[in-house]
Amino acid sequence: MQGTSFIGFGRGSNTGASSHAVNPATLESLEPAYVSPSNEEVKKAVELASTAFPIYRQLPAATRAQFLRTIATEIEAVADAIAARGVAETGLPEARLRGETGRTVGQLRLFASMLDEGSWVDARIEHAQPERTPIPKVDIRSMLRPLGPVVVFCASNFPLAYSVAGGDTASALAVGCPVIVKAHSSHPGTSEIVAGAVIRAAQQCGMPEGVFSVLYGSGVTVGGELVKHPAIKAVGFTGSHKGGRALMDIAAARSEPIPVYAEMSSINPVVILPGAIAEKASALAEGFYQSLTLGVGQFCTNPGLLLLPKGMETEFIAALQEKIAAAPTGTMLNAGICKAYQEATSACGAQPGVTTIASAQQAATGQATPAVFLCDAETFLTSPALSDEMFGPASLLISGTPEQLLSVAEALEGQLTASVHGTEADFASAGPLLEILERKAGRLIFNGFPTGVEVCHSMVHGGPYPSTSDGRSTSVGTMAAYRFTRPVAWQNTPEALLPDELKESNPLGIPRMVDGKHL
Amino acid sequence: MQGTSFIGFGRGSNTGASSHAVNPATLESLEPAYVSPSNEEVKKAVELASTAFPIYRQLPAATRAQFLRTIATEIEAVADAIAARGVAETGLPEARLRGETGRTVGQLRLFASMLDEGSWVDARIEHAQPERTPIPKVDIRSMLRPLGPVVVFCASNFPLAYSVAGGDTASALAVGCPVIVKAHSSHPGTSEIVAGAVIRAAQQCGMPEGVFSVLYGSGVTVGGELVKHPAIKAVGFTGSHKGGRALMDIAAARSEPIPVYAEMSSINPVVILPGAIAEKASALAEGFYQSLTLGVGQFCTNPGLLLLPKGMETEFIAALQEKIAAAPTGTMLNAGICKAYQEATSACGAQPGVTTIASAQQAATGQATPAVFLCDAETFLTSPALSDEMFGPASLLISGTPEQLLSVAEALEGQLTASVHGTEADFASAGPLLEILERKAGRLIFNGFPTGVEVCHSMVHGGPYPSTSDGRSTSVGTMAAYRFTRPVAWQNTPEALLPDELKESNPLGIPRMVDGKHL
Repeated sequence: MQGTSFIGFGRGSNTGASSHAVNPATLESLEPAYVSPSNEEVKKAVELASTAFPIYRQLPAATRAQFLRTIATEIEAVADAIAARGVAETGLPEARLRGETGRTVGQLRLFASMLDEGSWVDARIEHAQPERTPIPKVDIRSMLRPLGPVVVFCASNFPLAYSVAGGDTASALAVGCPVIVKAHSSHPGTSEIVAGAVIRAAQQCGMPEGVFSVLYGSGVTVGGELVKHPAIKAVGFTGSHKGGRALMDIAAARSEPIPVYAEMSSINPVVILPGAIAEKASALAEGFYQSLTLGVGQFCTNPGLLLLPKGMETEFIAALQEKIAAAPTGTMLNAGICKAYQEATSACGAQPGVTTIASAQQAATGQATPAVFLCDAETFLTSPALSDEMFGPASLLISGTPEQLLSVAEALEGQLTASVHGTEADFASAGPLLEILERKAGRLIFNGFPTGVEVCHSMVHGGPYPSTSDGRSTSVGTMAAYRFTRPVAWQNTPEALLPDELKESNPLGIPRMVDGKHL
Repeated sequence: MQGTSFIGFGRGSNTGASSHAVNPATLESLEPAYVSPSNEEVKKAVELASTAFPIYRQLPAATRAQFLRTIATEIEAVADAIAARGVAETGLPEARLRGETGRTVGQLRLFASMLDEGSWVDARIEHAQPERTPIPKVDIRSMLRPLGPVVVFCASNFPLAYSVAGGDTASALAVGCPVIVKAHSSHPGTSEIVAGAVIRAAQQCGMPEGVFSVLYGSGVTVGGELVKHPAIKAVGFTGSHKGGRALMDIAAARSEPIPVYAEMSSINPVVILPGAIAEKASALAEGFYQSLTLGVGQFCTNPGLLLLPKGMETEFIAALQEKIAAAPTGTMLNAGICKAYQEATSACGAQPGVTTIASAQQAATGQATPAVFLCDAETFLTSPALSDEMFGPASLLISGTPEQLLSVAEALEGQLTASVHGTEADFASAGPLLEILERKAGRLIFNGFPTGVEVCHSMVHGGPYPSTSDGRSTSVGTMAAYRFTRPVAWQNTPEALLPDELKESNPLGIPRMVDGKHL
């Protein structure tokens, strides 16, 4: 472990401002110190990425797929080191880190298989019609091509699956974009281990230098400098609303504005309909408790809002209280998150009209217990602060009549998910509710809870602002590839000059739209 | 002709600030006066669109297709009135207005056929695997859904195909978004005729009131107010860089930022390689002249930059000069555009190192002749102002060595198109040039000129900033549908609650991706 940035195939200097990771369970400082790169080093990483782009983007899809698979293999080879350092840096249990490593390599291989299958480029061919009147039709072919160098900000709550070689990196590298990662200060050592694996894979596969770099240092200074650099063409981010919005504003103010894909905050409303709560209040309380406390509540999809039918909430709340009373404390990811959780839950409990069902206990520093609050629909509708995310195992229950709960749903901001529990009879009359929720969320869940995000072709882990910066995209699953691409058309192009994906002979054998038909 | 805004199915008041269209050929003021809507009327149009959205977006695709086809029929029924008023307002010849009317109804019908075919929703189904370990796989299905009410700004240079019922409107209505049009002050009467046709179609098809409104008034005040309104979810614009960037900045500064699809400025470089100019200098000059002067140069794809091999330019330039000397004057769209054209061409000719091949003659007010300038690569590379668009029939020729022309290409900003003329031997060594041009443009054209944009499935009429606000999209062709949509996923959803596009039985019979395979 060197504690220096990865700048192309080299390492940054080890002088300058630095910081240590802290074990959130013990508050011990962990060696080595991680050094912030100089301005020149930041520029050099961007220049290397710029130089790599024209080469990398022209590599055959199969070569990029091989690169992704080699990264996966190299990460698996250091899985023990990742688990050991990851536990120390994040307080997450070893099983979680090993599971997340599995998800990370699975994601890389899923994007590799997407490249092999090939339909993601949306290849379209329309043949010339020279005899058409009044104007002959030209030959036009189009496909998606990469945007350019991408900056990826690591997430604190996914030290692997949304960090150095996580979903943002995998999707950007897959489509042909070099990546510069801004490592998260909470888990720099885990990042160094994974970065080494990616660099080894890049060298083994003969990738151009600059296809991948990892920089330490502050999000505001190093991150801000990266996002401002003219050669950067897109940004991926997972974190707070404040951080995401700051990056959006920087990107929008550039001489050439660029897209920012920021996954920010979501309270993931769960609605329990009367038939469901009458039938299985206790089972619903159990399911809700499990979702609420999974990973100490530190998921983007944590259920922060629960809507209950007025007059039917007693059994559910009693069962939930029983669960929470027996809940173990959990170590949060870092001291800042833990402090913010304590403050947010205290503030919620202090709001007029809010009853505390279970308060976050003052446990040892860095530890948290679940917190649950209750209010009526009118209180929620007149207290905008109650819509704020409380990152951690906290949730606000809202009790209301069916009409009131429709108003609550309509008042919600954009969400990653919305969940509804109901019986067949409930759903028969839930049309207006479902219509509202579909406008508010990226994913609708029936008789389930929002935690657990399948990495697949149809997943949407996105949603209207402010759950993300851009509801037109997903950060999980293969549709994430669309974020870092743009369509390009070729007109009357000689066969030899067309990309393989668009050649008449279809040498890659990929699915294409030809003259309006899917072949 | 009433001269008032269309607010839902009603009309705005006829009091308040107003302006007249002006016949650019005669400078006559045309009746009636067009009245700017009040703030309350603007708000009412947005509120009606908001109310219409939940209804409109849930209509079956076939119903929206029928609406688009009815709009086309209603426009055809008033084609004579459009042609008459259009000629008076724009100075464009009647044949062009009739042709553009044909393109407009063709676009509407193309989007209707896209809805019938159904693959555009990108329906994806992945079935549950309850036995999967360690975690069962849930059933996830996704498709594209509409963003919400869209504001469309009419273009001055396409009074039909990119105005009231043009491509932006057609694509937004197709995917399920209500549209509020901000009419262009250059052709308000043409807009009123077309708006009437759309409203008649909406009423005939039983569409919800508010699915379509057309507002007159200033782009800065009425347009700005629309873009700031929280219920507006996206913006389409075709016009100047200044206007587009102003809308981008307003949209980015909103509490909830929204996407702006602005097609702005492009100089559409054309490169002539040595073999091509040696073989057919005169034919290339003829083709270039035709493209340059089509529609008095008032196309987004006008060839504003031509790169010639140093030492081989004489015959081409002589042939071009001969053409231009015999060129008729043309009426520009309005006095403002004509004045800007005179100023831009004067400024270009006055730049040090720039030779005037043909200057825009001082013709009658509102009229223009072609202007062509020449400089060497070094002059271009050291004079940033030479990259500015001169809207109209003007172009700058750059002569340079192959290496210099590569530097010129690399220095270009984002473009809608890039064209290359070459022989087979030219192309065999043009790899580096083509690589650069592909990074700079949305459409690459071989042995052709950029004017003429086919409306089809594979067209990309977009390109990196500043040619558009967002190179990830196209404003022409069916891929434009993606601009006004976002993906939504349904998890473990009862069959009855799924949209038809995602039902297990595939009642619409559309192409879908099922468990990773295209069916």
